[in-house]
Amino acid sequence: MQLGMIGLGRMGGNIVRRLTRAGHHCVVYDRNPSAVTELAGEGAVGSGGLADLVAKLDAPRAVWVMLPAGAPTESTVQELGTLLQSGDIIIDGGNTFYKDDIRRGAALKQKGIHYVDVGTSGGVWGLERGYCMMIGGAKEAVDHLDPILATLAPGLGTIPRTPGREGRDPRPEMGYIHAGPIGAGHFVKMVHNGIEYGLMQAYAEGFDILKNKDSDALPEDERYTLDMADIAEVWRRGSVISSWLLDLTAEALAQDGSLSDYSGEVADSGEGRWTVNAAVEEAVPATVLTAALYARFRSRQTDAFSEKLLSAMRFMFGGHTEFKTKG
Amino acid sequence: MQLGMIGLGRMGGNIVRRLTRAGHHCVVYDRNPSAVTELAGEGAVGSGGLADLVAKLDAPRAVWVMLPAGAPTESTVQELGTLLQSGDIIIDGGNTFYKDDIRRGAALKQKGIHYVDVGTSGGVWGLERGYCMMIGGAKEAVDHLDPILATLAPGLGTIPRTPGREGRDPRPEMGYIHAGPIGAGHFVKMVHNGIEYGLMQAYAEGFDILKNKDSDALPEDERYTLDMADIAEVWRRGSVISSWLLDLTAEALAQDGSLSDYSGEVADSGEGRWTVNAAVEEAVPATVLTAALYARFRSRQTDAFSEKLLSAMRFMFGGHTEFKTKG
Amino acid sequence: MQLGMIGLGRMGGNIVRRLTRAGHHCVVYDRNPSAVTELAGEGAVGSGGLADLVAKLDAPRAVWVMLPAGAPTESTVQELGTLLQSGDIIIDGGNTFYKDDIRRGAALKQKGIHYVDVGTSGGVWGLERGYCMMIGGAKEAVDHLDPILATLAPGLGTIPRTPGREGRDPRPEMGYIHAGPIGAGHFVKMVHNGIEYGLMQAYAEGFDILKNKDSDALPEDERYTLDMADIAEVWRRGSVISSWLLDLTAEALAQDGSLSDYSGEVADSGEGRWTVNAAVEEAVPATVLTAALYARFRSRQTDAFSEKLLSAMRFMFGGHTEFKTKG
Amino acid sequence: MQLGMIGLGRMGGNIVRRLTRAGHHCVVYDRNPSAVTELAGEGAVGSGGLADLVAKLDAPRAVWVMLPAGAPTESTVQELGTLLQSGDIIIDGGNTFYKDDIRRGAALKQKGIHYVDVGTSGGVWGLERGYCMMIGGAKEAVDHLDPILATLAPGLGTIPRTPGREGRDPRPEMGYIHAGPIGAGHFVKMVHNGIEYGLMQAYAEGFDILKNKDSDALPEDERYTLDMADIAEVWRRGSVISSWLLDLTAEALAQDGSLSDYSGEVADSGEGRWTVNAAVEEAVPATVLTAALYARFRSRQTDAFSEKLLSAMRFMFGGHTEFKTKG
Repeated sequence: MQLGMIGLGRMGGNIVRRLTRAGHHCVVYDRNPSAVTELAGEGAVGSGGLADLVAKLDAPRAVWVMLPAGAPTESTVQELGTLLQSGDIIIDGGNTFYKDDIRRGAALKQKGIHYVDVGTSGGVWGLERGYCMMIGGAKEAVDHLDPILATLAPGLGTIPRTPGREGRDPRPEMGYIHAGPIGAGHFVKMVHNGIEYGLMQAYAEGFDILKNKDSDALPEDERYTLDMADIAEVWRRGSVISSWLLDLTAEALAQDGSLSDYSGEVADSGEGRWTVNAAVEEAVPATVLTAALYARFRSRQTDAFSEKLLSAMRFMFGGHTEFKTKG
Repeated sequence: MQLGMIGLGRMGGNIVRRLTRAGHHCVVYDRNPSAVTELAGEGAVGSGGLADLVAKLDAPRAVWVMLPAGAPTESTVQELGTLLQSGDIIIDGGNTFYKDDIRRGAALKQKGIHYVDVGTSGGVWGLERGYCMMIGGAKEAVDHLDPILATLAPGLGTIPRTPGREGRDPRPEMGYIHAGPIGAGHFVKMVHNGIEYGLMQAYAEGFDILKNKDSDALPEDERYTLDMADIAEVWRRGSVISSWLLDLTAEALAQDGSLSDYSGEVADSGEGRWTVNAAVEEAVPATVLTAALYARFRSRQTDAFSEKLLSAMRFMFGGHTEFKTKG
Repeated sequence: MQLGMIGLGRMGGNIVRRLTRAGHHCVVYDRNPSAVTELAGEGAVGSGGLADLVAKLDAPRAVWVMLPAGAPTESTVQELGTLLQSGDIIIDGGNTFYKDDIRRGAALKQKGIHYVDVGTSGGVWGLERGYCMMIGGAKEAVDHLDPILATLAPGLGTIPRTPGREGRDPRPEMGYIHAGPIGAGHFVKMVHNGIEYGLMQAYAEGFDILKNKDSDALPEDERYTLDMADIAEVWRRGSVISSWLLDLTAEALAQDGSLSDYSGEVADSGEGRWTVNAAVEEAVPATVLTAALYARFRSRQTDAFSEKLLSAMRFMFGGHTEFKTKG
Repeated sequence: MQLGMIGLGRMGGNIVRRLTRAGHHCVVYDRNPSAVTELAGEGAVGSGGLADLVAKLDAPRAVWVMLPAGAPTESTVQELGTLLQSGDIIIDGGNTFYKDDIRRGAALKQKGIHYVDVGTSGGVWGLERGYCMMIGGAKEAVDHLDPILATLAPGLGTIPRTPGREGRDPRPEMGYIHAGPIGAGHFVKMVHNGIEYGLMQAYAEGFDILKNKDSDALPEDERYTLDMADIAEVWRRGSVISSWLLDLTAEALAQDGSLSDYSGEVADSGEGRWTVNAAVEEAVPATVLTAALYARFRSRQTDAFSEKLLSAMRFMFGGHTEFKTKG
């Protein structure tokens, strides 16, 4: 089927590629003309702007916005709202906060325009592995997009099927889900990323404990110098904690077991923070997901006021001197 | 090769089966005679006690102890220490605390007996998938046992190989690792379980946030009723958080999305606690692994004194009344 | 000076009493007429509604709103905005979210009306001890209110003065602070409450560890049966952890060391949650304040889905049976 | 009464001073002769070694050991065990792990020597304020020491009495407690320090949130530049979170609101770690006390392997580049 794509970065570009290779017709736009030219060379139809892109699509139109969350996506969706007509569909495939989806969906509904939010996981691996997609929106709109979604999804592949799914919606087995009304796709994707933070931190702490088992602070007969790469590898094979993240960890550690090129200043994106906010709103004690987020915060603090205050208190009540060395 | 096995429960019995099927010769003992009889019927040689088992093995003997950690393993290892000779090998395949390994290894060394600790992951799935093994002990002893270990391990199987491992010890790719000196096997297995707690809790919290998204406490247009089973399934397919634990989660949720048969009182075993203790010893801030352990503690508290004390303080300073309803 | 007071509950009523006793003139209103009558009998001037209250005040008017945060406060402030004139002052003394203050302040500024937010701590003890107040707003408005604020504050009292404060703003020593522009008062009060949660939880956990030191799970020679009330008392006297919260704890435990009347289901209010949200916004790793909030969440969960999911995973990978006992 | 004191550092020396000023007779020893000389000049009797000290005391002797926990205390207690006689009392006033107390007490009991453990809080302030003491040991030994303990304790002072303590043991009100059998004193003191960590961290995080409220990452109209010293001061006066630690915080911040002289690398001592271990042993979810300990661990990590691993995973699955800047 036909799809408009706005935003031809790593994600948008590869989505177009995967669709084009499967015979779908994509009309594409990016503010960077060379990105448009590149994909036009791979079978897509280029366009010179939003109005042009809309003009090149047949009604009912489906336009996928694949831009950074926040202002770029917001302004594009707003502009599309003025260009599209009743029955058309706007798809936000970025990392939008789900409450923004709800707000936009309600506004576009006034004009009869559908809004569909698609949270995608798979990142740079999606072109090859397919994209795991979590989708929110009205049933008729999501159903209309099914040919596109089915193509983008990984499909059954070689992953063993889960016993007991007979008679259920077949789409989750293919790697995409209609999670619920507008916003539900991004909400589920948000929680996915929250879990991702927790999983990553669990591995990170475990390897830290392994790494520090050679510490001078331990009794000499209780020290081990352990091989990080080999341990990651062995856990991939038959252990309870095997996972794709562990596969990647094993590869990174095989390259350099000391990870000395990495700074250890770890960024966080909106999803991790929103997951904590959602937990607080729902009164769910998300201790691990929050601790994982906070570990990233702390990784970037260079001069934590909280810790200076601890030193100050210790000095005041106990005379413990934890002062900066004067240069 | 030849192996003595003491303890024919789910783990010990299946290890013997996997070895026997591959042509190894096992002499077995269990305090329950019918367990001995059953495995004798599957090709093992039964024995009537530790002395009998030792007598039926050729030197240098290798005796695997697969019993509950603590007193049962301790007394068996002690007794074997009196029955075995210099050059023999005792293998502890249970969930022993690694400092106990170190202590035992030092004592047995006086007699020239080798001690090898093997942490195994894979549980009830091991007979079929093979056992992921983490091994501590002297090189010569571990090398001597290699035929046994290679058989028990999962092997390469269909799991993709990790790029960059060329030239490295091939055993981790087969699913077993000689981690270091005595105790190192159980130490690595201990951290494995600590990570397992963290991973499990990360998924558990994420699904809790999804589940409670239909809470009455939320604004009506921000509520979703989400399908737990379908979400678990979709995440298995191309997402960053796919894992074996997620596979199992998807299966459990496909059976009953509300998990209403489970009590929610979650046990913990020594490994989780020892991992926290190890983190404290090493001064590693294992926030997630510890939070995961504490969530299990809290799941079993029925009348937490800490929380009553919070209520008491709130009453004292603010007149907030959080009293028990009088029956 | 003259002050209008809307809301004569425990807080508003006692504020009026403390002001009236000091010679200030209060015009009061509450939707409950008997509350108005009662305070009229103690020297305040009653009024029959917002318009009447405003009519009974001389310009520039100062009207203190002491109502539950959220809708009651919001609608009252909105209505006052239509009744008051340029130069008048609206004071919100409740537990308003500081971003609501900022929004309201900006709207009222259009009409020249000042908005002052006052976070108060002291609760039921304020009439006697005075109110600790954290104030946000324009300097001229806060200065204008100083006679009121100085009366409400605890004053120097018997609390030793902090060395090194010579030459500083004297108001903090009196127990009130002009923290910054609109919203800053409620922001500081919000963090105050966040800290309160953390302090309370620290004591609660400590006493829980003391209480459970008689557990059957411990080795017999390592068990102690400790006296909660006596321990709380001794810590009040010369220890590093003495505090007003500990004073209250000692009193509660002296009444009943087992706190058996308390349910242990602990409520939380907006401030604790907003503090966590603020930490997330600022990327400050507020691990303790968040853990304290989450402990309250968990205290109210009766059937945590997260914990059932842990049990389900344990069953799936290890055959561990943590099922509900069938009635 | 008569007391031997071994160890004349800040704590031991001031204890002797407080006792001597009250008319008690102290025989003192320190491996540093000038410390002995100094206290001899203040009314104590000097001694040249443990045997000399013991010889200068009348039976039943009471000898207080005030040395660093671990080897120094251990060897001294061992030596005293050989010098003292049945009916004598060894007091360990240091920061000993309570399980060491239990072990030592059991050994000394064979010779009829009493062992009393005294956990003390008050630090450098004790000479002036008195020492808050938590005591473990046999009733007859603790009772025998009462004149000493009563002198060292702060006494009633100006601290208001707790309602409802009529008829209870009067000692806690004086600032000392006989907590239970051997080890109970150090156990209670250990938990005291665990709570101390939690309280300190709660304040530290709150002030960190206040401090970072001027961050560029926040919307411009939601930033405040807050005065740390004034906020600490105002909270001392009528607020729910007033405490001695807050008094000290206010003083430190009045000196320098940016605490720029402090390094922020915060030490931790045994008690905080042992408290976490005790919580784990008892299965008490001590989330806040543990988070406080871990914050100190993290404050001292300069190159956390866990965080590099997070960066490595992010690079592997998403191409996120968090590399060290090459010098």
